[in-house]
Amino acid sequence: MQNFDYQTPTRLIFGEGVIEQLPAVMGALGRKVLLAYGGGSIKKIGLYDKVRTLLRDFELLELSGIQPNPKYDPSVLEGVRLCKDNGVEVILAVGGGSVLDCAKAIAAGARYDGDPWDLITYRAKAGDALPIVDILTLAATGSEYDCGCVISRTETNDKVGYMDERLFPVCSFLDPTYTFTVSKKQTAAGCADAMNHIMEQYFAEDTTLLNDGFCEAGLKSLMANTRACLADPQDYRARAEMMFACTLGCNGIYALGNSQTGWPLHAIEHALSAYYDITHGEGLAIITPRWMRYILSERTVDRFVRYGVNVFGIDPTLARLEIAQRAIDATYAFFEEIGIPMHLRDVGIGEERIGEMAHHIAVNEGLEQAYVPLNEQDIAAIITASL
Amino acid sequence: MQNFDYQTPTRLIFGEGVIEQLPAVMGALGRKVLLAYGGGSIKKIGLYDKVRTLLRDFELLELSGIQPNPKYDPSVLEGVRLCKDNGVEVILAVGGGSVLDCAKAIAAGARYDGDPWDLITYRAKAGDALPIVDILTLAATGSEYDCGCVISRTETNDKVGYMDERLFPVCSFLDPTYTFTVSKKQTAAGCADAMNHIMEQYFAEDTTLLNDGFCEAGLKSLMANTRACLADPQDYRARAEMMFACTLGCNGIYALGNSQTGWPLHAIEHALSAYYDITHGEGLAIITPRWMRYILSERTVDRFVRYGVNVFGIDPTLARLEIAQRAIDATYAFFEEIGIPMHLRDVGIGEERIGEMAHHIAVNEGLEQAYVPLNEQDIAAIITASL
Repeated sequence: MQNFDYQTPTRLIFGEGVIEQLPAVMGALGRKVLLAYGGGSIKKIGLYDKVRTLLRDFELLELSGIQPNPKYDPSVLEGVRLCKDNGVEVILAVGGGSVLDCAKAIAAGARYDGDPWDLITYRAKAGDALPIVDILTLAATGSEYDCGCVISRTETNDKVGYMDERLFPVCSFLDPTYTFTVSKKQTAAGCADAMNHIMEQYFAEDTTLLNDGFCEAGLKSLMANTRACLADPQDYRARAEMMFACTLGCNGIYALGNSQTGWPLHAIEHALSAYYDITHGEGLAIITPRWMRYILSERTVDRFVRYGVNVFGIDPTLARLEIAQRAIDATYAFFEEIGIPMHLRDVGIGEERIGEMAHHIAVNEGLEQAYVPLNEQDIAAIITASL
Repeated sequence: MQNFDYQTPTRLIFGEGVIEQLPAVMGALGRKVLLAYGGGSIKKIGLYDKVRTLLRDFELLELSGIQPNPKYDPSVLEGVRLCKDNGVEVILAVGGGSVLDCAKAIAAGARYDGDPWDLITYRAKAGDALPIVDILTLAATGSEYDCGCVISRTETNDKVGYMDERLFPVCSFLDPTYTFTVSKKQTAAGCADAMNHIMEQYFAEDTTLLNDGFCEAGLKSLMANTRACLADPQDYRARAEMMFACTLGCNGIYALGNSQTGWPLHAIEHALSAYYDITHGEGLAIITPRWMRYILSERTVDRFVRYGVNVFGIDPTLARLEIAQRAIDATYAFFEEIGIPMHLRDVGIGEERIGEMAHHIAVNEGLEQAYVPLNEQDIAAIITASL
């Protein structure tokens, strides 16, 4: 078991109707608010109007149009400008992980004198950040309970992860009913994203009985509840459990004491969506079983055996390699079952830029330190197998 | 799934040697420190000297002699007096749950003008509290990661639980090597305490796949690692995992969204140790299987089936009642195996005061709201069966 330093100060207010507590929470942080959101979905479900009504005594500025794989330019830059020009005191992010991630980059940039890209690329360290409150409308990224964000810069094909302990949301409002209208496609992609967060932590050295059990419970919960959400999008219980399982995905609780793993699936997928702007969870789901097959070896087989037996209920008396292969097949089959296109070609990615992407990943992501180290050739092979 | 409002702001610094970070953590909180500890064990293991060396630039006042089932008089009162008289800025608790619990009551009392018992019994609400840092030397209570404490008042046979969100430790130092010298008796009692924390949350309504899996992982981890700690008290990995599984026991993560359960095992045991000052974990272990047998019914049997199959690996094809009974037997057998005396008579409790204790519990603990409601007669029957 490895040493760790862990803290997650975010307050989670969870359940139907909890939004009524928004004014009290916001009031403690400031009156001048940047309301950040994406497209029109929060207007369709009435959440936009609800927020404006609840915060009628606050001064709201708006940053809308934040896209999936949120963009440095214009979203982060525009948000920072709005905050600086208007003395914004607190950011309210309403949406999914992309809106939240964008809000985090803005929160840091708003209190920094230079180019916010310096912070995102760790060339400078944020001395301070605006407080963030969020209202989640998509179960997926876990950004509502971590201090990280992922920001894309289109002109350089960069999709960069940035973490700073100042960027934990002060409070996350988690009302599962806001996810009732999430499409089947986004529900499945959210599930794949959250499952991958767990897998990135589960396929590690030095794991504990405790964390293995936590991860397996998370994976089983996500699979069962995603099936239930797809069967009945308004199944409160399923939406609720899925939301909560996703929320825990990235704050570290699934892997305290485990070895670092390099998060290879995310490292590879970030390049795919930086180059092609695909749906993050779909990219992850496509790569996952190919990565698994690629890293399966005598060294890793026991981890796959545990995964197969405990997550998929595969007969533990079978040969170890057989269990491992069935576990990988079951992973593929599950993603296919929930409707994810399982080939990169299905999402518009061909072989043209594989070499370029593999080089970009190998240079920028440090996967020679991963659970199974991956060099440029390995990465290219995994992407090629995913076509 | 039920609504919840959850926050655990405590920073956990975990692993061998992390104590070196103590001066930096303390320095941010103040220079005038109340060093609270129990008997001489922290001196025997060299921790006392280490702390004094690390904090040589701080002004330390000492409160020693804090007992198991920490006492309002003298420990809490003396600590509050020391803090008030000397302008203490931060409390450093070095020890197990009892020392930490005592430190929490002191932290609240030190910033309150009246009798601290008002706070502990919720007749008044703390407006503020001193910050607490702790160095844990016993894996058991989880007090290092929650905002509660349990304080005993000998003259009235009260053992009262008190929670306030101001009482989360700012930072808990968790170095498993400090538990290498914990006796077999205390190791087993700590395990029983932590297992009971999980059971109190697992035997509930409205549980989720996620939390059920978390709880089962916690229970399995505690059992396997306690066996390993008893076999080799210096097994770092086992001590480490046990410490961490215990740490998560009471902060709510094992049961977010579950129904409230009334924590009946703790409610009953608190009276036993208030009247007889027995070891808390042993009292819990003795009561647990008797409580389980008492509440087993058609309504609860499926919970016991899940428990038996997933925690003890009992054959799921057996009849439901058979699985449940085997699960209860296995619970008893495990506690017996790790050396816990499994009858109240073994720890000096006879039948003389059962009626009195049952009445005290029924009046004070509100167990008519428990997972299975318990009245005075039920409580007396469970204690009697535990003799």
